[in-house]
Amino acid sequence: MNSFGNIFRLTSFGESHGPGIGGVIDGCPPGIEVDMAFIRQELDRRKPGQSKITTPRREEDEVQFLSGIYEGQTTGTPIGFIVWNKQQHSADYDDIERLYRPSHADYTYQVKYGLRDPRGGGRSSARETVARCVAGAIAKLALRAYGISVWAYTSQVGAVRLEGTYKEYSPGMVEENAVRCPDPAKAIEMEKLIREVQSEGDTIGGVITCIAQGVPPGLGEPVFGKLHAALGHAMLTINAAKGFEYGDGFSSALYRGSAHNDTFFDDHGKIQTRTNHSGGIQGGISNGQDIYFRVAFKPVATVLMTQETVTVEGEDTLFKARGRHDPCVLPRAVPIVEAMTAITLLDYLLIQKAK
Amino acid sequence: MNSFGNIFRLTSFGESHGPGIGGVIDGCPPGIEVDMAFIRQELDRRKPGQSKITTPRREEDEVQFLSGIYEGQTTGTPIGFIVWNKQQHSADYDDIERLYRPSHADYTYQVKYGLRDPRGGGRSSARETVARCVAGAIAKLALRAYGISVWAYTSQVGAVRLEGTYKEYSPGMVEENAVRCPDPAKAIEMEKLIREVQSEGDTIGGVITCIAQGVPPGLGEPVFGKLHAALGHAMLTINAAKGFEYGDGFSSALYRGSAHNDTFFDDHGKIQTRTNHSGGIQGGISNGQDIYFRVAFKPVATVLMTQETVTVEGEDTLFKARGRHDPCVLPRAVPIVEAMTAITLLDYLLIQKAK
Amino acid sequence: MNSFGNIFRLTSFGESHGPGIGGVIDGCPPGIEVDMAFIRQELDRRKPGQSKITTPRREEDEVQFLSGIYEGQTTGTPIGFIVWNKQQHSADYDDIERLYRPSHADYTYQVKYGLRDPRGGGRSSARETVARCVAGAIAKLALRAYGISVWAYTSQVGAVRLEGTYKEYSPGMVEENAVRCPDPAKAIEMEKLIREVQSEGDTIGGVITCIAQGVPPGLGEPVFGKLHAALGHAMLTINAAKGFEYGDGFSSALYRGSAHNDTFFDDHGKIQTRTNHSGGIQGGISNGQDIYFRVAFKPVATVLMTQETVTVEGEDTLFKARGRHDPCVLPRAVPIVEAMTAITLLDYLLIQKAK
Amino acid sequence: MNSFGNIFRLTSFGESHGPGIGGVIDGCPPGIEVDMAFIRQELDRRKPGQSKITTPRREEDEVQFLSGIYEGQTTGTPIGFIVWNKQQHSADYDDIERLYRPSHADYTYQVKYGLRDPRGGGRSSARETVARCVAGAIAKLALRAYGISVWAYTSQVGAVRLEGTYKEYSPGMVEENAVRCPDPAKAIEMEKLIREVQSEGDTIGGVITCIAQGVPPGLGEPVFGKLHAALGHAMLTINAAKGFEYGDGFSSALYRGSAHNDTFFDDHGKIQTRTNHSGGIQGGISNGQDIYFRVAFKPVATVLMTQETVTVEGEDTLFKARGRHDPCVLPRAVPIVEAMTAITLLDYLLIQKAK
Repeated sequence: MNSFGNIFRLTSFGESHGPGIGGVIDGCPPGIEVDMAFIRQELDRRKPGQSKITTPRREEDEVQFLSGIYEGQTTGTPIGFIVWNKQQHSADYDDIERLYRPSHADYTYQVKYGLRDPRGGGRSSARETVARCVAGAIAKLALRAYGISVWAYTSQVGAVRLEGTYKEYSPGMVEENAVRCPDPAKAIEMEKLIREVQSEGDTIGGVITCIAQGVPPGLGEPVFGKLHAALGHAMLTINAAKGFEYGDGFSSALYRGSAHNDTFFDDHGKIQTRTNHSGGIQGGISNGQDIYFRVAFKPVATVLMTQETVTVEGEDTLFKARGRHDPCVLPRAVPIVEAMTAITLLDYLLIQKAK
Repeated sequence: MNSFGNIFRLTSFGESHGPGIGGVIDGCPPGIEVDMAFIRQELDRRKPGQSKITTPRREEDEVQFLSGIYEGQTTGTPIGFIVWNKQQHSADYDDIERLYRPSHADYTYQVKYGLRDPRGGGRSSARETVARCVAGAIAKLALRAYGISVWAYTSQVGAVRLEGTYKEYSPGMVEENAVRCPDPAKAIEMEKLIREVQSEGDTIGGVITCIAQGVPPGLGEPVFGKLHAALGHAMLTINAAKGFEYGDGFSSALYRGSAHNDTFFDDHGKIQTRTNHSGGIQGGISNGQDIYFRVAFKPVATVLMTQETVTVEGEDTLFKARGRHDPCVLPRAVPIVEAMTAITLLDYLLIQKAK
Repeated sequence: MNSFGNIFRLTSFGESHGPGIGGVIDGCPPGIEVDMAFIRQELDRRKPGQSKITTPRREEDEVQFLSGIYEGQTTGTPIGFIVWNKQQHSADYDDIERLYRPSHADYTYQVKYGLRDPRGGGRSSARETVARCVAGAIAKLALRAYGISVWAYTSQVGAVRLEGTYKEYSPGMVEENAVRCPDPAKAIEMEKLIREVQSEGDTIGGVITCIAQGVPPGLGEPVFGKLHAALGHAMLTINAAKGFEYGDGFSSALYRGSAHNDTFFDDHGKIQTRTNHSGGIQGGISNGQDIYFRVAFKPVATVLMTQETVTVEGEDTLFKARGRHDPCVLPRAVPIVEAMTAITLLDYLLIQKAK
Repeated sequence: MNSFGNIFRLTSFGESHGPGIGGVIDGCPPGIEVDMAFIRQELDRRKPGQSKITTPRREEDEVQFLSGIYEGQTTGTPIGFIVWNKQQHSADYDDIERLYRPSHADYTYQVKYGLRDPRGGGRSSARETVARCVAGAIAKLALRAYGISVWAYTSQVGAVRLEGTYKEYSPGMVEENAVRCPDPAKAIEMEKLIREVQSEGDTIGGVITCIAQGVPPGLGEPVFGKLHAALGHAMLTINAAKGFEYGDGFSSALYRGSAHNDTFFDDHGKIQTRTNHSGGIQGGISNGQDIYFRVAFKPVATVLMTQETVTVEGEDTLFKARGRHDPCVLPRAVPIVEAMTAITLLDYLLIQKAK
């Protein structure tokens, strides 16, 4: 259950405070040029310490490839890789060992396995997502040859939200600010809000919007392999994700069918839709229009404030997290959302070839 | 890709206007009493024609079991079953053959496969969900022995929505009205709205809330097998589903961590949480609290109104659906949401046993 | 665990004395012409009662397709099917219920599941293979378009064995006699031997040789998905199979590398090997030469002779099977070996396309 | 396709001359004591250079665990690991790049992927099996708690073969000689034969016999998940394996049913069989008796003799391998056979728990 994908398939391993986080990418097509600068850049987008609104922990996340690449190209055999953990402060997890932090996975892991690795949250740490960014970068490189691109941005932090749709923004604007919001004015508001909660030792949630463009019609499988179900699954595996919606999503509930339907027209031999309430997917299969969806994230559970909880023996206790933590997961989650989207789309593209 | 689940696994087949819809349930534990009256009742909750606000098409959905049951008990071998289609009006799909209905799967299937079965929408018809209700009923019977129950209800139709949480309602109230809303006053409003859009030949969307109670802590797998990711995947495979959120879902975005965290306490030796923003799942693993989530549904795409579209040759044309269709998918989707939830929970319960 | 294949995937269900045996074929490419006469012919090759050396039970094995086919072509959606059981003699299994037949699956099923369906051996009956012949026939039809053909024959019954290799025979000779041996003289010997053991109420084992021709180089996956491992798995799932070898098989043990190696040469631009000790597979991947392998079958466990055994309570008892049974499984296993080979090859052909 | 197993699942990666060979073990039960001395010993049994009849290449095969272990115990999360390659002689593979070695995977990889990693045979090298020995050692440790043991030995090299069954030998005798044959006299003969072929630059094949004891009845799944089919699949994925047979195997062909059947008797409340022609598996499910099977291996394809072949351009050429190679794969394959057996049995034991 630590694998994702059918043909293009990532198996990840690693704990936050063990030797490292790594994975195996199986089913990668041969002949993909492995652009190391691009991969490094993708990891840099995820790494901690990149701005004042992310955790000041500094991780130099360099990936070491262990197999599956020869003379700069993928060979079709499994790509093993590891990102070594450089900072492992054993002091960090004394508390975790003796109590259950609220809204963390300490309690559930203990019950599930009967024992657990308390170092930094072990396997439940969001540090695991670095493996996804590696696989996502490879997937993005493979998708390029098909003209498929994926981009995401922070569209809401707390109550500060973008009113417009993705069509008003361009991917180039996302990296212009620390919060990864393509609307400069809103970005300032969001950043201000994050700094405010940060100063209180608190955290805040938000929403990421993601767009895939250039996806050919025909990807997705009827019934249980619907493309949006695979994307939803992918997004909901990201730490702190609480919801997923595509196309009009929850607001579809308010619509009448006559207003929601996307009518077809012929655009110089290519069948298009005049509107795109469907979010680029109809009957679970891509229709050639832009795919777009939103992912909700809860506030990070690690707050630098005193909270009530219980020890592993069930005694009442107080807990106050120390150390360096993200006040808002959103900015660093943007590349992870993109990575999981790219992995899913490449997988479904390869599935479609097997006909 | 027509299978769902890992250990308890449903493979479904069938088209709306072919001989029937069926499936194979693999991995069902042996020794489950197959309560045929209960299964029939579950199918009756899904069947068309059960009230004035569902399609007046009448289908007598009787399941015929073909294997895997002996003397009223499951044997552990695969349970094959079929629900025969009784009404097949060939006239129904003349239009579908020559054009692409807006927001249906006609176009995407054609591109994907190069050919398609136009009879009633073929495989993309929601009639496929009858197979899920059969498997879901078996799963519910198996879950009973573990004290796990699942129930769902319509919590929103168009702009009419329940303001309270599931705690204000009981499962027994759901079946009291045609719309499957446990709030009698709201149910009347919803039904009125549905009849109104129906009279105009139009359709309307909505939201279903689902609750699983008695789920032991420890179900769900870290990383890619998070329990809520599996539930989200399950829900998003249901026809017309556009979004999924669990616990506080999208409203988590508005929260601060200090307010969102669920503090633990010891309740006579059992560790509980004082609040349940998490929706019963932490780190992807059940924590013993109630699991609850919401699923958004778009309005049914089949409206009895004239719409613009194109023929399969790309010519502009007009299309007006005839026949009998649901003005709102919600009431009949309630048992389907429950069924997919039960299937997912039983699967994860069995996965947890394999340790 | 009742599914076989990755992309082209058969899920089977059914017991010998229940309503029927059926299955779902998922991942079948769209646009395959479903030649019903060919499918019927394949089922006829497997059916009981076709000659004096098979069981005189007569089953009219007609397949009813339930989905996935439209106007004579596969649509790409799952193909559900059933072969109804016509003769169900409840008297047949009184004994099976009260005791464990030697070398049958009665005891192991009982221990595994805690209960079992005793009717005709339930799920462990070789009648299940009829589902494989249906899927195999579809696979053969799909493979035709790629120029791939599969044929098998009985190469040994008891001590009567063919000395030559498959190159001395042609597929057309296989169906010329009841034993499915392409050497007419040996066929007479084999048939004589079978009739002899039959007259004593006994049974006899044998070996089937199978050949796949026209398989392009490149099928098979390194390491765990080696083509011969998939074929071996496929063969060993057939009832009564005890061994599998490909190329020189067990006799490879006697060889020196210098004599066993297949040297390459260029045959007008196509790279071929001068010998084919490898059996058409090198490093787990097809090399374009003929693939050939052998499958060993034990004698049928149902003998019409008195044997010692125990009752379900562990009491000593005697058991003598009654009714009509095959004295030798080989003749009817030939089409099953072919079917499983075709299913495996088509699956791996589709996997190879997903690159 | 670089994964093996369902619940207990090994995904392997790595090439012989890349940075290392590694893998991820998913689904390992929590709480297994990781006996590092035992694991090291298992790797030592596989490593090259351990005697005069194995390749004099010396590899210090030390495994580095990267995750999934805490304070000496498995945690239930994925166990990542790597065995670093220490000797990488680039000169070794100049030839491999320009030509196709006979009976190697050079040609088939090239056709399959359109490019290949020629260093030491890349992914097709038997060095990959070190990952299996790591996973196998963990599996053996887990099986101990269930009282299940696995052992194998060399039963044939060339024409030198053991006439008796495994019952005449004990596991303790296997490691007494370099060839891993429990019959001291035969071991001397085998070793003599291996040295003889070695002195000629040639290689020789053989057979390994493997036994699993203490396996409880009930493991294995009907139809496609038969226990012997899983074991056969596992064995056939080992480099140079050409055949698999269990119980009486190919010699079953010679038997009559009356002589082959294993009659049951009650042994103080435990149902046993008087003979064990079945090899401990009936109807695909373990019956509590010893499981035993044989695996045939061809002679190593790398001979230090001049052979004809073609260049990648299809020109005739001569090839003579240089360097250090095994004259016989058998002695080092013994621990690999055991490892794959342990992995398979643990997987099926966990599957059986999920009921």
